[in-house]
Amino acid sequence: MKKVLSVIIMVVLTMPAIAQEIEKWGRFEVAYEANVKGNPFDVVLTATFTNGGQSTTVTGFYDGDGRYLVRFMPDKEGRWTFTTRSKVGALNGKKGSFTCTAPSEGNHGPVSAAGPDFKYADGTWYYPVGTTSYSWMHAPKGYPERTLKSLEESGFNKIRCLFFPQNISYDYEGPYPFERKADGSWNFERFNPDYFREVESYTDRLRDLGIECDLILFHPYDGGKWGFDRMPLEVNLRYLRYIAARMGSFRNVWWSLANEWDGLKRIPAEDWEKFGECVADSDPYGHLLSVHGYTATYYPYWKPWVTHCSIQDQAPVEGPGRAGTVRNIYKKPVVFDEVCYEGNLVARWGNLSGEEELYRMWNALIAGTYATHAECLNLDGNGKSEQSTNYLAFGGDFHGECWKRIKLMRSILEGLPHPLYLADKSWDTSFAGAGDGCYLLYFGKEMKDEWVFDIPTKNLDFARPQKGEKFQVDIIDTWDMTITTWPVTFELGEPTPGNYRFMDVQHRSVRLPLKPYILLRIRKI
Amino acid sequence: MKKVLSVIIMVVLTMPAIAQEIEKWGRFEVAYEANVKGNPFDVVLTATFTNGGQSTTVTGFYDGDGRYLVRFMPDKEGRWTFTTRSKVGALNGKKGSFTCTAPSEGNHGPVSAAGPDFKYADGTWYYPVGTTSYSWMHAPKGYPERTLKSLEESGFNKIRCLFFPQNISYDYEGPYPFERKADGSWNFERFNPDYFREVESYTDRLRDLGIECDLILFHPYDGGKWGFDRMPLEVNLRYLRYIAARMGSFRNVWWSLANEWDGLKRIPAEDWEKFGECVADSDPYGHLLSVHGYTATYYPYWKPWVTHCSIQDQAPVEGPGRAGTVRNIYKKPVVFDEVCYEGNLVARWGNLSGEEELYRMWNALIAGTYATHAECLNLDGNGKSEQSTNYLAFGGDFHGECWKRIKLMRSILEGLPHPLYLADKSWDTSFAGAGDGCYLLYFGKEMKDEWVFDIPTKNLDFARPQKGEKFQVDIIDTWDMTITTWPVTFELGEPTPGNYRFMDVQHRSVRLPLKPYILLRIRKI
Repeated sequence: MKKVLSVIIMVVLTMPAIAQEIEKWGRFEVAYEANVKGNPFDVVLTATFTNGGQSTTVTGFYDGDGRYLVRFMPDKEGRWTFTTRSKVGALNGKKGSFTCTAPSEGNHGPVSAAGPDFKYADGTWYYPVGTTSYSWMHAPKGYPERTLKSLEESGFNKIRCLFFPQNISYDYEGPYPFERKADGSWNFERFNPDYFREVESYTDRLRDLGIECDLILFHPYDGGKWGFDRMPLEVNLRYLRYIAARMGSFRNVWWSLANEWDGLKRIPAEDWEKFGECVADSDPYGHLLSVHGYTATYYPYWKPWVTHCSIQDQAPVEGPGRAGTVRNIYKKPVVFDEVCYEGNLVARWGNLSGEEELYRMWNALIAGTYATHAECLNLDGNGKSEQSTNYLAFGGDFHGECWKRIKLMRSILEGLPHPLYLADKSWDTSFAGAGDGCYLLYFGKEMKDEWVFDIPTKNLDFARPQKGEKFQVDIIDTWDMTITTWPVTFELGEPTPGNYRFMDVQHRSVRLPLKPYILLRIRKI
Repeated sequence: MKKVLSVIIMVVLTMPAIAQEIEKWGRFEVAYEANVKGNPFDVVLTATFTNGGQSTTVTGFYDGDGRYLVRFMPDKEGRWTFTTRSKVGALNGKKGSFTCTAPSEGNHGPVSAAGPDFKYADGTWYYPVGTTSYSWMHAPKGYPERTLKSLEESGFNKIRCLFFPQNISYDYEGPYPFERKADGSWNFERFNPDYFREVESYTDRLRDLGIECDLILFHPYDGGKWGFDRMPLEVNLRYLRYIAARMGSFRNVWWSLANEWDGLKRIPAEDWEKFGECVADSDPYGHLLSVHGYTATYYPYWKPWVTHCSIQDQAPVEGPGRAGTVRNIYKKPVVFDEVCYEGNLVARWGNLSGEEELYRMWNALIAGTYATHAECLNLDGNGKSEQSTNYLAFGGDFHGECWKRIKLMRSILEGLPHPLYLADKSWDTSFAGAGDGCYLLYFGKEMKDEWVFDIPTKNLDFARPQKGEKFQVDIIDTWDMTITTWPVTFELGEPTPGNYRFMDVQHRSVRLPLKPYILLRIRKI
């Protein structure tokens, strides 16, 4: 990879001034060489990109070997020109241009929050159906490729992973994000670009699979081994600015300040605000930005720099629709990034059945929120939580049961006219609206052999159902993965007393399989 | 009442300078006469009260008939002196003093937030076990006395009620909070002190019963009849400053900016922030202050002026302990001031059984939150929600079933060493801790004939149970109101794998009545 990158840079450096083409939300990159006195990582380099009346200033960065890079993600088609600015003469006043072309197929741009929902920049709704593998990028040879393959096969469209290496039961041998001093200690003033390039390369591989990379910038699973969990404030801020300069132009990046921020005992609690503001200020693209804590610690997600809630808590997803309360409180997108995992650990956070894991994901969805998958099945069955042979730690192949149902989940979501919400909020927590004339009703663990057609008259802020309208019902078995359209067409009669519900004019019902995890899709025809 | 008050004032005015005695958190009042040009309500009068190194400045107010009052609630025993300040000569530089004595029995001072819990000023925990009667202070003759009697008999220690009259199906004939102009319209520049005195008098009656008055300052149930739901901003702020000056010295007052604030369509949403800040700034005592909205609308309760969450939402209290999520998010006391009511209305918010009402209150309690009672049983059974014959509207006598179980609930709570919280938060939502060595376990609607002794090893930030400790269990039937101590003493064995739970050394169990609404009190002996 390093070799390939060098070749690309050589080409850029030696290229005549012909118009380069970069697709919308793709990445433009230009390299300059300069020899400076002192620490090259201290050099300030910016570039202002202009297209018509629109302009964006980005920060360049030192990439090692006397080379400085400027990266830019254009969000508008047409001709962009740019000029650099630096106190270093060789980096100042450099000009250039490129043409931004239409996005290629599958490129919807970066995801951002749209009220309590997520949207790609091109207006397509984004439904996070994510999994977790902390160290897949830093796992031994062979694992990353297997992880990319298993992700592609399973249909996940988001992965949570750690930027720094994890101190678990395997011998991580580098690279590391910082250079070492002669005495073996870290030189926090000098980054190791190789480390960043590896993460960048895998982030691009995810992008090519249509997968968002929820990159965790700090984590406590270092335990002081390397000390990346206890660096001084100025080092932390320097690191955040550097990674924002390097990776802000990656359209599929989300910033997660931490996994279990409150586990980083050497970082003062008030520093997280500084980190959040630093990343928000350093990222001209406004990528999604949140922070994840211990079970139910709930960071003040109402802070302006927090774009969405990244929560560890299982209580709100232990029944259908309960999580609606969390959505109602924050009025931002809510992702339960830890709801316990499918696994065989002794630790209670890692010993759910696949059924329970899937159930919690659907419980979250019905409330207009999202729960993130993970599995930690140790193949040797030793029950240890720090084990490095499970997907949560290393990636590789899935061995559980839940992941097999993810493609169906995602296809159901992506077939909806609008992201879900509780149609009659707080009154019916099993019944989700999905825009005009489309609903999902989830029975969870309740096994029924019949459902008498009965829908709320309310539909949040969307078109309400009306007497005489006709509906069709699909019976979806979320576990056994079947979809059956019920042959009867229902017709709404008069609303019930108090105007709360509509039933069918003939009070007809749907015969259900007497099984758990049944979902109904109810659509106006 | 008016007559009595006049006599008191005469006494104060004519009294020689002998030392008056006021108990701690009682109310000192002094009156001055002055004739001013223009609107006497515009006169600015303050008084600074000093006791040793401590001083508080309060605002006086015009009380009609050329009389200005200064009220003050002392929070420190000993000699207080004061000096007034005003541009009106007759009100300026007046001095006086009084002696603050020890509080009388039952006077614990005002309630405030202590983290996510409530505490009286004397350090006693306060557990809000409240009910609701919007217009009991403005109900026809006879009702208020019956309401005070029913409150005393039932054991509620808080009531939510409206300051302004309510436009429902009865002919309210005054008084009104403002004077009228010659054309019959309101003169918003002149308050009617008689109206305020009536509210004050009833607030004192509540105080004498040990009941907190959660006074609702705005409400939408005017519907434009009198227009108190659509006054201009400056009138609203003037009203808030006036009531804070009059009633801040009432130790049992809580400020509730509104019931269903988002129903007040003529008040711009941003004004609620102004109201909140105005009350916080105008009340030198920092009384509890919140605002209540429609179902699940969730005001940003994280704002600094909000002391606690006053929420309308039933979803978080539909199962034991779920509401813990709301407590975990806000980290302030949480009161669900509307969780639907015991009643026989067609409206779904007013047709719960008494059992369901009580169940929701216990569900909230187990989570370390509180749910407020109300009943709206129309004796004529006509199902109309605006009916003025039910307790919710008018007070009077209770006719439901839930209220009978309130005294038991309150005695259980007041017997705890500490307010409740989920001992093993988000992992066991039925199991509340109550400080060191005391727990409540609520089964809700689950009917069990046996409970195998099994408690979490965690206890939030309190002392954790230890192997070898002995526990006693009381079986409390919250509906049939029995308390039975189980004869076996349990002894903690080794913790279970993962160190999550303790069971009895012999795995002994408690025989339970096969009934719903059973609560266990588990205490270390």
